[in-house]
Amino acid sequence: MKKPILFLAMILAGATYGAAKDQSRDPYTEPADTATVDTSGWAALSGPTRLTWTPGDKHYRQFATPEVTQCSDTIVNAWRGERLGLEALLISHEGCGPVKVSLSPLQRAGKSVAAPGSQASLMRYVITTAYNTCGYPSADLPTYTVPDMIDLPGTDAAIPAKSVRPVWVTVEVPRDIAPGDYTMTLTASAASTGKTVATARLQVNVAPNTLPAPKDYAFYLDMWQQPYAISRYYDVEPWSDAHLEKMAPYADMLARAGQKAVSVILFYEPWGEQSNDKFEPMVETVRTKDGKWKFDFSVLDRYVKFMADHGVDEVLECFTMVPWQPQYRYRDAATDSLKFIECKPGSPEYKELWTAMLQSLTSHLKQKGWYDKTEIVMDERGLPDMLAALNVAQTAVPGLKMALAGNYHKELVDTLQSYTMIKGEFFPESVLNKRRAKGQRSILYTCCATPAPSQFSNSAPADGAYLPVYATATGFDGYLHWSFNNWTDHPMTDTRFHMFAPGDTYFVYPDGRTSVRYERMVEGIQMSEKIRLLREELENRQDLAGLQLLEQALLPIRTGAMTSYYPTSAVVSDLHKSLDVISRRVAQ
Amino acid sequence: MKKPILFLAMILAGATYGAAKDQSRDPYTEPADTATVDTSGWAALSGPTRLTWTPGDKHYRQFATPEVTQCSDTIVNAWRGERLGLEALLISHEGCGPVKVSLSPLQRAGKSVAAPGSQASLMRYVITTAYNTCGYPSADLPTYTVPDMIDLPGTDAAIPAKSVRPVWVTVEVPRDIAPGDYTMTLTASAASTGKTVATARLQVNVAPNTLPAPKDYAFYLDMWQQPYAISRYYDVEPWSDAHLEKMAPYADMLARAGQKAVSVILFYEPWGEQSNDKFEPMVETVRTKDGKWKFDFSVLDRYVKFMADHGVDEVLECFTMVPWQPQYRYRDAATDSLKFIECKPGSPEYKELWTAMLQSLTSHLKQKGWYDKTEIVMDERGLPDMLAALNVAQTAVPGLKMALAGNYHKELVDTLQSYTMIKGEFFPESVLNKRRAKGQRSILYTCCATPAPSQFSNSAPADGAYLPVYATATGFDGYLHWSFNNWTDHPMTDTRFHMFAPGDTYFVYPDGRTSVRYERMVEGIQMSEKIRLLREELENRQDLAGLQLLEQALLPIRTGAMTSYYPTSAVVSDLHKSLDVISRRVAQ
Repeated sequence: MKKPILFLAMILAGATYGAAKDQSRDPYTEPADTATVDTSGWAALSGPTRLTWTPGDKHYRQFATPEVTQCSDTIVNAWRGERLGLEALLISHEGCGPVKVSLSPLQRAGKSVAAPGSQASLMRYVITTAYNTCGYPSADLPTYTVPDMIDLPGTDAAIPAKSVRPVWVTVEVPRDIAPGDYTMTLTASAASTGKTVATARLQVNVAPNTLPAPKDYAFYLDMWQQPYAISRYYDVEPWSDAHLEKMAPYADMLARAGQKAVSVILFYEPWGEQSNDKFEPMVETVRTKDGKWKFDFSVLDRYVKFMADHGVDEVLECFTMVPWQPQYRYRDAATDSLKFIECKPGSPEYKELWTAMLQSLTSHLKQKGWYDKTEIVMDERGLPDMLAALNVAQTAVPGLKMALAGNYHKELVDTLQSYTMIKGEFFPESVLNKRRAKGQRSILYTCCATPAPSQFSNSAPADGAYLPVYATATGFDGYLHWSFNNWTDHPMTDTRFHMFAPGDTYFVYPDGRTSVRYERMVEGIQMSEKIRLLREELENRQDLAGLQLLEQALLPIRTGAMTSYYPTSAVVSDLHKSLDVISRRVAQ
Repeated sequence: MKKPILFLAMILAGATYGAAKDQSRDPYTEPADTATVDTSGWAALSGPTRLTWTPGDKHYRQFATPEVTQCSDTIVNAWRGERLGLEALLISHEGCGPVKVSLSPLQRAGKSVAAPGSQASLMRYVITTAYNTCGYPSADLPTYTVPDMIDLPGTDAAIPAKSVRPVWVTVEVPRDIAPGDYTMTLTASAASTGKTVATARLQVNVAPNTLPAPKDYAFYLDMWQQPYAISRYYDVEPWSDAHLEKMAPYADMLARAGQKAVSVILFYEPWGEQSNDKFEPMVETVRTKDGKWKFDFSVLDRYVKFMADHGVDEVLECFTMVPWQPQYRYRDAATDSLKFIECKPGSPEYKELWTAMLQSLTSHLKQKGWYDKTEIVMDERGLPDMLAALNVAQTAVPGLKMALAGNYHKELVDTLQSYTMIKGEFFPESVLNKRRAKGQRSILYTCCATPAPSQFSNSAPADGAYLPVYATATGFDGYLHWSFNNWTDHPMTDTRFHMFAPGDTYFVYPDGRTSVRYERMVEGIQMSEKIRLLREELENRQDLAGLQLLEQALLPIRTGAMTSYYPTSAVVSDLHKSLDVISRRVAQ
């Protein structure tokens, strides 16, 4: 362990751990919404604090009169193994003291059934704006708050008069539960006395259909990870045990969603200004005194093993042979200092460096038994650069798998193991079929350039569920987002970054808090899995009418239907209903 | 016949027939392309004039070096009853004197088979610009020419040196022909001597599958007709025998495409400035001396009978209860002059006028046996106006069918017999299903507000085929365009209008000339019919694998895939190939 520690000590040069760098870990104060909202209807909501189920298809503004119909009893359909996300709303005309929420076990015929992972939590408001594109939003944009963050179970919050507090309920339906109708009770109670403030009843109708374990999802989820935001936020040494401990909840969340790829960083900072925290390399690149390249893979090994321990180990995605800036950092042994080599793909220096890196990496990964799951990523740059990089890689290690998230290039579609295009672009049908036949992956991504549906903190909540299903229904194998946890300076309270739409850089919050966007994305991935399994089953049964039902149900999402009168929430809700019908058909 | 003549004389007041009003009927001179094009490759094309088949997926510029591979022998697959459109290209480095083209009969085993309606024609260049949106294009926009017009068979043109001349070949595969492989020869010959300049061979592989007669197409085509552009262009009295004679080719073209609706104009000029020729009413509205409303339907009868004689008689679409300007012209019997009444939908005057009109119209149409096929159209205006009009209509004639081409209004989707929305909008799935179950029609339209794919003279030729299939594949029952023959001042040469993208106002040219856009639209409608018939047949056979093939083939068009690397031409071509495969499967 001597070498990694040396390496770690080296890459941390310049950062002082142990001293707070900013206020990100100040005592938590939920931001107050200072925007003007419609409060005219509160009079009609007088009386004690209520609790109601809501469709969860909008962000309930904290002080606006909520337009909900009271519903304290609801029914949802689920498959075994499904993670359900439901939203309830505390509505208080008079206001009340600190309230917490809790969820009973599943109940059936007077008996309790444990459903580990099921829980109820208050939702928390975070700052956003209406910005929904790329570029640099003005710091003066009006802000407002949305309840995107799902707090840890057991926390409480006081409810001011004439305000709402959304509540998130997660039900993890056990994979081995007996099919049937179960009930649960959501209870809001006074934090101080434990006295019940309000309750709401939930009936979960569990179908005999079973979702696979997330590890076995066919849906390819790829959320790029950012370990260095976590080490910065908690002020811990990268790759220390403390760091891994802080990262564990996020690895678990990724695993629960069916994440396939581990983001391996080969060289310092592939993405420049879009990284709030700089990405340190997971490989130490050293130029020896005699001018040779040497590599140390101990951090890589540590991260890959960590992710595998948490269930994410299908692909090692290595960044990047064509970075934003054509420069690569290394330690110069002669001077014991960090230096950069700047070289264009295809240049002799580039060829020498990357040949050494890829051959050494390959040899190491083969030793570890990981080579077959490794893919070398290129960022979208000019085609000549990408072709040159490809050439260097294939000369150094013939058959090495390559990946790209970028534009369509007919020169690359035959070669790339993983090809990711922005929502709105499509592979020609014959290309898609050929790629699939070869076991190559075709993925869809969204980012700041896809205003809606998208995954910003200001996006419609249903967008999160819509996107994975859209990917599946339109022929892609999965969904990619470039930033799962690229935290802002104050991730607990403010989703704005100096670039992009707010929230575009992270889906999850500190201390293992999830978000509406994470939960709804899981919902969409599960729908994708249902579609796949239902189709397989209907094909096995040669149930043509059932298959036609399924095709018909997918039509709206295939067309990308999304208008003011047919928003993603309606499209997703229609699809849920259809899948329920087909699930029952198949369960018979 | 006294009354109609009186009425006709009256509506023509102010127009002087028999005197040429403009140069539209000057001797034809094809416009020369004065735009700069790439001529650098002509040297490689030296030698005698060539004739080659082309994919027809671009507009071959007259003087640009054509990027085509020589192909003087090609094979196409067809169903019986299919109208094939193929493009060939004469390429002349040296130039040559006037050339004409001709097409042999279908040949098989040494025998000729007549294929009436099959023909070869030179294509003609018309003026366009790159404008592709709504509004008023600047008159200064650079122009260029595209070979959109398909000339009448037998005409000739000289070919300047270093220029091309596209040729259109129509093959009407007889519905009762024996399946099998046929050949045809396309010949270009000197107009003066008859000497052959070049030939190209075509093999038509006729499948056993048969398309229905166009009248029996399920696809709902609605191209709004403009009789008054034709009477103006030919300077003939509206509704005279001469007028009907000039309109006959267009009625036939519409019938061949499967047109369902007859455009009936109830009041003077529903659309204002977007009509180059003002629409005269087909109903004479008279206010009698005692203040009563009286109506004369003789022109309506004449037009409806004319269209029915040509095979278009499924729906009488009556324009419009909510016109662009809320005014209605009538003849005031007291003063024997034309007057306008201006009244908002729902006002007492509106109610009185429209109640009288609709009750009188209904009584007349019932007498004729046409009432059940009648629909009263509204133009898109504010919802209160539309609801008021609906209310007046349903009070006057309960159950009278109504139609709208406009935005989505949840208040109207239950009621309207025909509901047409712009491409890009979608009915919610449940709404679409409910409407279909009730026998209501849901239609897609394009116009100046749909830049691509669209039906402008500058649109990609494949767009014409793409749009009908897109409508079918995304759940609509058909396709609507607001202007089949709203001719410009010089329709033979210049497709520009003072509004809109060039060509948006007409699909067909004088003297019965069709266009690439018309022909490719027919291609798309035929594809839609094939999809319907193949699906029916596969369902009958419970051929699940075949149905999945079909669904897969429809995926690209459903997603609206259309990018620079996957243009409509590739999407259409992929779909043709898939339909050929499935046709063969079904034919077995």
